[in-house]
Parts: sequence; structure tokens; C-alpha cells
Amino acid sequence: MSGSTFGTLYRVTTFGESHGKAVGCIIEGCPAGVPLDESHIQPALDRRRPGQSRLTTPRNEKDQVEILSGVFEGKTLGTPICMVVRNQDADSRRYAEMKDLYRPSHADYTWEAKFGHRDWRGGGRASARETVARVAAGALAEHILLQLFGVEIVAWVDQVAEITAEVDLQTVVRQQVEETPVRCPDPETATAMIAAIDAARKARDTIGGCVACVIRGVPAGWGEPVFDKLDALLAQAMLSLPAAKGVEIGSGFAGTTMRGSEHNDPFIMGEDGHVATSTNHSGGIQGGISNGMPISLRVAFKPVATHFQSQDTVTTDGDDTQFQAKGRHDPCVLPRAIPIVESMAALTLLDVCMRQEAVGALHKRMREQE
Amino acid sequence: MSGSTFGTLYRVTTFGESHGKAVGCIIEGCPAGVPLDESHIQPALDRRRPGQSRLTTPRNEKDQVEILSGVFEGKTLGTPICMVVRNQDADSRRYAEMKDLYRPSHADYTWEAKFGHRDWRGGGRASARETVARVAAGALAEHILLQLFGVEIVAWVDQVAEITAEVDLQTVVRQQVEETPVRCPDPETATAMIAAIDAARKARDTIGGCVACVIRGVPAGWGEPVFDKLDALLAQAMLSLPAAKGVEIGSGFAGTTMRGSEHNDPFIMGEDGHVATSTNHSGGIQGGISNGMPISLRVAFKPVATHFQSQDTVTTDGDDTQFQAKGRHDPCVLPRAIPIVESMAALTLLDVCMRQEAVGALHKRMREQE
Amino acid sequence: MSGSTFGTLYRVTTFGESHGKAVGCIIEGCPAGVPLDESHIQPALDRRRPGQSRLTTPRNEKDQVEILSGVFEGKTLGTPICMVVRNQDADSRRYAEMKDLYRPSHADYTWEAKFGHRDWRGGGRASARETVARVAAGALAEHILLQLFGVEIVAWVDQVAEITAEVDLQTVVRQQVEETPVRCPDPETATAMIAAIDAARKARDTIGGCVACVIRGVPAGWGEPVFDKLDALLAQAMLSLPAAKGVEIGSGFAGTTMRGSEHNDPFIMGEDGHVATSTNHSGGIQGGISNGMPISLRVAFKPVATHFQSQDTVTTDGDDTQFQAKGRHDPCVLPRAIPIVESMAALTLLDVCMRQEAVGALHKRMREQE
Amino acid sequence: MSGSTFGTLYRVTTFGESHGKAVGCIIEGCPAGVPLDESHIQPALDRRRPGQSRLTTPRNEKDQVEILSGVFEGKTLGTPICMVVRNQDADSRRYAEMKDLYRPSHADYTWEAKFGHRDWRGGGRASARETVARVAAGALAEHILLQLFGVEIVAWVDQVAEITAEVDLQTVVRQQVEETPVRCPDPETATAMIAAIDAARKARDTIGGCVACVIRGVPAGWGEPVFDKLDALLAQAMLSLPAAKGVEIGSGFAGTTMRGSEHNDPFIMGEDGHVATSTNHSGGIQGGISNGMPISLRVAFKPVATHFQSQDTVTTDGDDTQFQAKGRHDPCVLPRAIPIVESMAALTLLDVCMRQEAVGALHKRMREQE
Repeated sequence: MSGSTFGTLYRVTTFGESHGKAVGCIIEGCPAGVPLDESHIQPALDRRRPGQSRLTTPRNEKDQVEILSGVFEGKTLGTPICMVVRNQDADSRRYAEMKDLYRPSHADYTWEAKFGHRDWRGGGRASARETVARVAAGALAEHILLQLFGVEIVAWVDQVAEITAEVDLQTVVRQQVEETPVRCPDPETATAMIAAIDAARKARDTIGGCVACVIRGVPAGWGEPVFDKLDALLAQAMLSLPAAKGVEIGSGFAGTTMRGSEHNDPFIMGEDGHVATSTNHSGGIQGGISNGMPISLRVAFKPVATHFQSQDTVTTDGDDTQFQAKGRHDPCVLPRAIPIVESMAALTLLDVCMRQEAVGALHKRMREQE
Repeated sequence: MSGSTFGTLYRVTTFGESHGKAVGCIIEGCPAGVPLDESHIQPALDRRRPGQSRLTTPRNEKDQVEILSGVFEGKTLGTPICMVVRNQDADSRRYAEMKDLYRPSHADYTWEAKFGHRDWRGGGRASARETVARVAAGALAEHILLQLFGVEIVAWVDQVAEITAEVDLQTVVRQQVEETPVRCPDPETATAMIAAIDAARKARDTIGGCVACVIRGVPAGWGEPVFDKLDALLAQAMLSLPAAKGVEIGSGFAGTTMRGSEHNDPFIMGEDGHVATSTNHSGGIQGGISNGMPISLRVAFKPVATHFQSQDTVTTDGDDTQFQAKGRHDPCVLPRAIPIVESMAALTLLDVCMRQEAVGALHKRMREQE
Repeated sequence: MSGSTFGTLYRVTTFGESHGKAVGCIIEGCPAGVPLDESHIQPALDRRRPGQSRLTTPRNEKDQVEILSGVFEGKTLGTPICMVVRNQDADSRRYAEMKDLYRPSHADYTWEAKFGHRDWRGGGRASARETVARVAAGALAEHILLQLFGVEIVAWVDQVAEITAEVDLQTVVRQQVEETPVRCPDPETATAMIAAIDAARKARDTIGGCVACVIRGVPAGWGEPVFDKLDALLAQAMLSLPAAKGVEIGSGFAGTTMRGSEHNDPFIMGEDGHVATSTNHSGGIQGGISNGMPISLRVAFKPVATHFQSQDTVTTDGDDTQFQAKGRHDPCVLPRAIPIVESMAALTLLDVCMRQEAVGALHKRMREQE
Repeated sequence: MSGSTFGTLYRVTTFGESHGKAVGCIIEGCPAGVPLDESHIQPALDRRRPGQSRLTTPRNEKDQVEILSGVFEGKTLGTPICMVVRNQDADSRRYAEMKDLYRPSHADYTWEAKFGHRDWRGGGRASARETVARVAAGALAEHILLQLFGVEIVAWVDQVAEITAEVDLQTVVRQQVEETPVRCPDPETATAMIAAIDAARKARDTIGGCVACVIRGVPAGWGEPVFDKLDALLAQAMLSLPAAKGVEIGSGFAGTTMRGSEHNDPFIMGEDGHVATSTNHSGGIQGGISNGMPISLRVAFKPVATHFQSQDTVTTDGDDTQFQAKGRHDPCVLPRAIPIVESMAALTLLDVCMRQEAVGALHKRMREQE
């Protein structure tokens, strides 16, 4: 209950500090027999890792994953899977200068208040580097969801500062997202976003924005009311990400100004014989349970806390001081957030899937006996 | 893990269907020695219960709570506290007509898809009536937070349709909120909101909006990164509420268009000798941990699904049909959502409080031995 | 995590003090569609309740169960099931005299040390009366195990003081157990046990003994190594019972003096085509997982703490005093422990069953895709 | 919930197969500020590791632990601590011959039945090698318990086959235990035990026995009724160990033949001003909560399953066959079980300690406000 575990049946526990020896995770609850070796995980880490383009931090981490357990003859054993990524390009020197002050809107102060002892190198465990472990665990979850249920997860940069994309939830695919370094599948908007990020960097400043995500192929019935509703768990998943400040499902905040008669999604019979809806303001979730329509959500990320202008702050002794950031930092986290958002979606979905399968298996036995 | 339990150390498990015999909860983890009898809980239920004004449903439930266990001689025992509220004014007749169709944007279809057997009377367990149990448990949590830590929680209706209030997070108190039936502490806005709700009712339609909440007095150090960050848990708590479609902390979605140099909250020394910030875009939470500043959040609620216009839908057999709602329904859930949002905030806060106290107690022992 | 919840997927949370208003439980995770009303539960409570014979306490509790939630039209909904049993014949007067001292080998002192405030009436929550709730939840679990998997659970009094029964694990059925008031299926031994209990009562003393339990029909594959091995969970379940001081699986303590060559259970092919063993020293569990053979265990219960001889003890102020018990008490808990042991076995088994079904359902999907 | 996690607040999740790349664990919930580097853990692993004497398997593992996270400047950070021990001397060749049969009284069959895919090398995750991770995590727990609470844990070999030791629970210390290779602190009995083990080896057979454990210095108040009673959790902890078939607390099975008047432990005032008992049949636990007296327990271990006589069994295809063990195996696991039993005791105790501290901290605040 230390807060580093996510999920109930497909459970991930992450470990590691940004400049410590390694980051990684243990995955519990993965079924036996799933094909797995490092080659299934590495591509996801490569999508997340720094240094991919001029838009991201130049810290050069290979992020090579090693699987220590839970796999035999190329297939999972059903036992805990430990994955480790060694930190290699950590440069802690610049952090030594700032260890005696609190960087504004970073976690320095709150972690010190909480623990009394903190790793000031690179943000320690509060660093986004911890999400390496989430992506490793999420890659496996995503693979299982796709293979066994045909579930497809696509996230993209939907907004940078005030620039917003128009994307079709029904058709967008990952390949389109990967075509631009800013990971926006709408090419014209992508160009504008890149320009905005470059402008922020030149202004020694940073910008925020929104990531959107669609999950297609989820059958009706996933989600565990009343507290572990699918939307509630997705919200926790997304707001556990560094710099995330908001989340919305389906129509979200915009839906609050609609009338009920506009907002309701009429039920129709879908072409595949399943119940469907003719609109999807619900975002694929009703009463906390998936309804078979595409699940859609958006996550708000504040501008990166590390900009390169001088800032007022206090020292750990409580004296006023000025802080001037150094080091390597993304001017905008959005592009690198894409695989992380997808991973959190996958971890959430596979877990509610397995929770439903557990009772579903008994339901099936009951029907067979009637 | 059925999804009806919330919290780790202060844990609440709710039960009950809207038209079943009763709704209620078990609270585990409440410390011994807390003064408690029904009179501590009933006022919170009275704030939530229907029939309080013309803005809300006329279902007339007394919502009388009975405490079955965990209390002796007027104080908690540290053992599970079971609280029960009998359902008394349930009128299931009107629901019998619609048991064979799926009401649009309700949970009828998803619950049937998930469970195969559902209580169609009054929405069953998907009904907002389940939140009675949350309010009962939250009232106790709120009491403990206030008594032991001076934590104060105030929520209010911040937006109805397109009408938005201006409220001072530092000073707003519950008494102001309670002064208008719409529970908006800004009297002029309240008048406009009431007019909008009345207009919606006359149009046989429904409207949505936003609830805002501020939590003052939380010390720095509450929240459990990386997955159980305080903002992540608040997000889960709020999106587990019926009709909630979004949540934001501090600057939220609006903060995504700010520059880092504007958004960062400079640290200063507060008058009480604690570290503070001169702005509070972070909404009192940094790195997933409270920083001692007021915690602020907003929750988006979609318009109520039950309006009184005719709607297209399908029957449980998959045939097209028309649905015309009857029965007793709120045209706008926002006013009654206030005590529910406060309760979910209290449940979340007391739980992270106790998680911090558990390790804090050991930290203290260590310091005493040095 | 208050310690009143048992299980992971089929979860029971109990509440209630011996002389409080009620005892009861919430069951989470029960699948939807299981036939259930009070008549499925009451017989199990009737087997457990006091006043059944001269061997047990004369406290006269009807132990009438009421189901408050989770059931509709005679079938479970898949939502939390709350069951309540009101306490009716509680007589607290005699306890008032002893509220200022610690009864030897009772939980008075430890509960006061832990909580600082305790319900001294009838032992409060430390009373065996709490097990009413376990039996209610266990009765439902037992029913599901029998219906869906053919699992059969039979417990009996195997030892009273030094008198030991000889019982055939393969054939013993509950009807034989119920034939004598002492619940030993070996009639001659039962007679001797009854005489021993009567003698203890006449001597104003109490006696202990062992309960044995066999679980037949469990398929191979249930149990979750490495910590939630089936035997480990059964051990927790049994040692959570009042007065239990030991538990053994299969050959248990007696097996420690055997050679490996004697103790090992050779594998053979069973008549049903499944792998079996020709002996069963393992007690149906190998490596923490069921192997398809009958699961056997024994639980040691100390003599009842309340005898009617004068005892040395101290007051809550720390002064020496004498304690003389009054009130209504079983001279031997063994006969009434039978349905309780069976219930704990059922709760444990159904939970590991569902945990296996959760991954088993995915294994099946994988095989179907190959 | 895969079964590889133990504990609620001090939580350990272990991973690893016997002949995989590594075994290890993540510890969650360790408070910040505890001095820690590899040198605090290695001695415990050295006590457990094979090849220490002629009594144990000659597999030569250095069992060198590496801490990957959770520590900075020699002190814990309060974040997850990942510890890894690489497997180096695994020799899988001999196992290839037996991968197509089920070794009697091993976990080969049950793991295959459960998972459908198993690591047949060295028993895979069912191997006692997994306990390396428990000892690493337990060493840290033991250190914290000793430093902060003065809790002292001593286990020893109490019985080998029919040879039983007499040991004083009040005075026995670890140094006495370590004086003989069989880890029995009673030197004469130790000599007899060693002879018995040697005799079993010469007979190409194996033997079992009992480990006893005493825990001194636990304050009154640890343990979480009704399901997480301290004795119940210790029982789960011990029966989760490979080859364990029984556990007893205090008087245990022997206590079942005593009268209540003999068995009850009279309360007296201890020299330190705390309530104590003049006898300790309760084994330091009453009503599932520690009472301040030494906690005592015994664990029964069956004879090692791998002996070197020919055995009947079946192949994975269901054909009769003979199995003749090869490889390196302990004739008696008892001596190496000592640090493992101590570790499981430490993990259990620190967890209930922290659970009590969490509410105890609130109790203290309440008293301060009165």
C-alpha cells in the first residue's frame, strides 16, 4: 500500500529513482503462456525514451530492458515478471547545486515534507523517468489485450498551448501518430505545434497541452462499480502521471453545457448484432462500465516546471533565493507522454478485463448447468 | 475487489440497491475513541436527501441512519462500523414498464451486459441513491479530519450550464453555500442558476454543470506516489460519482495554455513559518503530495440522463422502440452533489492521512533514537 | 485493512459485537445469478447457534438472518450482499461486574491495550458470536462450490481432550456428523466424548480438542504460490478462529517423524483419467496448489477460557484480584466449531477458485486462438 | 493478487525461478531514513545459502545481493526497495531428464495443472530458492524491529525426526543456535540430530522435523482481528514455506488435552509495570493480539521430497514410470529453514506493527486534544 502498485489482478509495482542504479517493475497476474521476451517490450521503451528528436531532452538513455523472471522458453510462466532498465546517462552534477533549495512547482518540497530524506538527483523517484517501468508493463498488457480481445489503443497530442487538432476517433491509427515528431496525426496542426514548442524553447520557457486517447474494441461489461468504475480507474491512472492536472471522459467538461436531450446517446442495433449508440458523448462508458463503443479520454498536462528563466524560491533552510535551471529538459512533455498514456490505459483495461473474466467464467459455468 | 470498497486504511464498503431493502456501508479502520452516534451522521444525510427544495426530486426518503456496530458508550471501538439506511419511499411501479428496454445514457445496458441479471427498479445499484452510504461514511471522516487536523472541506455549485460563479477559495465557508437552494455561494449567480434549472424543467429537459471543492488545512506530506498520488486518488473518487465526466486539480485544463514561467508557483515562507507558495496553480498538490496550500478541484457533471422528451432506443430483445421517461427525477444533480463531493474528498483525505501517519509514527521513533 | 476482511475475489467483511445491535457481513464478488434468499443461509446458522443441546451455552439466539442487498427476484445481482443478524438474547448484566478486570486467557487485556476503549459486554467483538457472520457468508460460498464444482466439505470433532476418533476421509458425510450432539461421526467415540464434556462441566472446568475437515472434489490447480498457497490461506483462515492454537495439513506434525521414502505420495493414473496419488500424506495440496486428491486438515482448539473455578488476575488498575466466572458458556467449543470450520474452508476455497478462474479464462482464450 | 505479495503496510513482492536469471523482491512501505546498504542484508543471505556444511546441498551460490532502488546516501528513501540476487551455479542438465515426469510430492504436477507451462529446471518458482528474496526482505524488517522496538527473533531446530530439544524460550539467543551446523542450541541434542541426518543420507533417504521460534519484546497491541489476527498471519507466513505442513502457537496441539483451569494464564503485574502472565500457554497472543509476553510458535516440516531411492510415478503423458533422483539436495531442510522462519516472522511482525502505528498515531492525537 506504499502507492507504487497499480491494479488488482494484473498488478504492476514499479521501483527506481531517476539517477539511481535502475528503474523497473514487477508484473503480477500475467497469465501463463503469453509469448514474451525483451523484443516485445523494447519497441515501446524506444518510443518513450529521451533523445528521439530535437523536441525532447538530450539525455541519452538506451533504456535496454532485461527480463529477470517469469519467462521460460519464450513464454510467460504465470509467475511475477521482473523487468529492469539500468540508468546509464544520469548526470547528477548539476543537481548538487540545487539540492539545498526547492525548485518551484517540482516535487522537491513535498517529498522532503513527506519523507524527510530525498534523492535530489534528477528529481529522484518523482522524475518522469519512473514511467519507463509503466511503459514496460503496459507494453505487455497492450499485447495481451490486442491478441486476446482485439483491443486497440491510440493516443496522440491533441493540444499544445492553444493549438488544437481535429482527429477522427474511429479511424486514427498509431502509424499516423508516429509520422510527426510531435505525435499529432493531423499534419498541419502538427507543424503548428512544433513551431510553438520551438518558440517556447527559444523563449527559455515551456508549454503544456492535452493528450487524447481512444480505445477501440473493448466489449461491453468491463469496469467495477461503484468505486472502481472504468472511468474512475482511468482517471486515477492518468492523474498519476507527472504534470497531469485534469482528465475527461467522452464529452467531459464541454458536455456540461449541453442539454440532456442533446447529450444522451440513443441506443441502436449495430451492424455486428450488438447494441450500439448513434452518438458517443458517453465516451464508451456508461455507469462506469464499457458499453462496446470506442472509449475516449483527454488528459491535461501543465507546462513543464523546468524553464530557463530565473525564479523566486526558498532554500531548505527557509531563506529567499533565486533559482536558475540547468541540465537537460523537455520544453514540452506531450510527445513523450503518448506511449505513457497508452500504457496506463492498457494497464487499466487489462485489469478490469481480468476482473470481469473471473466472474464471467463462473457465470458461464452456471449457464452451462441450467 | 468487487469495486465497492474505497480506501486502504480508512476503508468504506458500500451496499444496496435503490429500491432494495436498504443502502449502507461498513467503515473499517476508524480509530477507537472517536465520539459517534447517529446524530453525528444524520445532518449530512439530511443535506443530501431528496425533497429538500423544488430543485430536486420529490421522492420522500427520511434517510434515517442506524449504526449497527463499532460503537460503545458513544465512542468508536476501532472495529467495523456498519451503518444502515432503510429505503422507504421506493416506488417501483413506473419502472416495470421500462424493464424491457435500455434507457439512453443510463447504466441499464452496461449492467445487463456485465451481470446478466439486473435490478431494473430505480436503476438498482447504479442509482445515485447508493451515495447515501458514501455520505454517511464521509461525514465521519470529515469529522475526524476537522477535529484532529483542522481540515476543512467546502464544495459548491460552480457552474450550471454556461453560468459560472466567482468564488474565493481562501474564504468560502459552507454556511454561504447553504444559503441558496442551488448551493452556489455567489448569490447573484445562484439566482441565475436557479432560473436556468427552472427553464430546463419547463422544457422537459435537464442540464449539467461543475462542482468546485476546496480543502483547507491539509498539512504538507499527504499522498502516496507514484500511483496513489493525492490528485490521482481524488480523481478516482470524483469520477466514481454518477454522471461525473471530468475532474481537474488546481489550474486544470485552463493551465494547459499557460507558459511554465506563468504557471509555476514560487515558494515563499508563510506567516506560520511553513513553506508556502505565492500563487496556487498547483491546487495544493505537487508531485502527488499535498504542499500545505488549499487543495482545489472541479468536477464536471453531464446533464441528467432522465429528461421527459421522447427518445429513440432499443428493447432488451434488440428491437427499436421509443422511451418516454416517467417518475421523479432531479432536472439538475448539482445541488445534491455537494455533500457527496465533500464526502468523497473526506474519504480520500483521511485515507492518505492515515497512510502518512503509519510511516510518520516510525519516522518519529527513529528521530527520537538518534 | 482493518483485519475484518477475508478473501481477494470472494471477499467477506464482518461486523458486530456480541452484545451490540447486530452482527453481519458484506460479501463482495459473488457472481450474479446465484439463487439466494434467507432460506439458503438460515440452516447453516441454525447448525451454529447456541442452545442446540446440553453440550452448548443456553444463550437463546434465534439468529434470524436478513439479506439487505445484492439479491433481486431470488437471484444474486453480482453486487455486495449485506446480511444482518440482530442480537436478541444478550444479557450484559453479568459482564458489568467484570468490566474492571482482565479475565485470564480472554482478549480483554489485549483489546484494551490495542484500542484503549473496549466493549466489555460478552467479549465484544472478540466473542465467538462474530462467527455468525462467517457462517452466513460461508454458507453461500459452500453452496456455489457444490453447485458449480461438486466440492464437498465435511468437518467433525476428531478429538476431545485425549479421546480421538477414527474417521474415513473418503467416505464421511455430514449426515453422520450430525447424528450425535458432539458432532463426531464415530458413534462409540462420540459417546466417550460426551461423557468427557459432561465430566468437565461437573468439575466446573472446560476442555479442548481438535476438529478435522476434509474437502473432496477440488480440481487440481487451486492456490496461489508463493504466499497465498492454499495451505497457507487455510492456516490463516483456521487460526483466525477464536481459541484455535494450531493447524496441520495432511500428515502434519505426525509426518515430521516419517522418512521421505515413506511420506512421498506416488503418482498414479486415477480411474477418471486424472493424475492421482496412491497415498495422500500431502493432504491434497502440493507446492501450495490442490492436486485433485481430498484436502485434509486438523485444527487444535485450546480449552475454553471461561471455567467456573476461581482465578488469579489483575484489575484494569493493575491490582491483584480474584475472578469468578458467571454467565452462560460452552464447556467445550468443539461441536459448535464444526459449521464455523466448514465455513472458513468454503470461504478460502471459493476465493482461490475464483482467482484461478480469472487466469484460467485467459488461458482458455489463448488456446482457442492457437 | 498473484500470491507473490506478503503484507499490508510493509509489503514484499518476490520474483524469480530457481534456474532463471535472478531471484529478488520489491519492498514497499519501508519508512524513510533507515540505514541500509548491501552489508545489512548479506549476512542473512549468507546464513541461508547452500553449501555451508556437509548437512546441506553442495550447490554453490554466492547469493550476492544488489540493491537497485530506494536507498540514497546510505539511508532508505521511503520508496520501493528492489533487491536482486543473480543465480550463478544453476545446473539444469539433470533436470532435462525428468522434465517429462512428475516427481512424487514435488510441485511438478500441480504447477503444470495450474499454469499449463512450467519451468522444470530446479523446481522453477516452487523451489526453496525463492526464499532468498524473503530472507533479504526479512533482514531489513528484523533490523527495523530491533532498532525501533527492541524486538528480538530467535528460531532453532527443535526436532529432527523423533529427536527433540529442550530450549528455554526466555534466554535462547541466536549465537547459541549458530554454534552447531544443525542449528539446535541444545548441544547434546544437536549431536544426535546430526547423526540422524547423516544416517538418513547414508540410507539415501530424507527426514523432517520442527523449527521453533520465539519473538521477544513485542509490546501488547499488535495484530488485527478478526481475520488478520497475529497468530493467523504467522500461520499463513509459516505455511507458505516449502515443505511446511503444520504450525502451532504457544501450547498448540499439546494444549488440546489440558483443562481450562490448567491452561489459562493468570494475569500478574510484571516488574516493568506492565501487565504480564505467570504462565504463557497462550504463546504471547490472546484474541489474536500480542499481550507483551514472548511469542512462541513451532512449524512442522515434512521430510524432503527428493530422496535417492527409486520411486513409482507417472509421465506427463500419463504412463507409469520409475523416477530416480539425481542432483544436489539437502537430506534435511531444517538447518537452512532457520533464517527463513525468522524472516517470515519479521515480515509478519513489522507489518502488524505498522498497522497498529497507523491508528496509534491518531489515538495519540486524540488524547492530546482532550
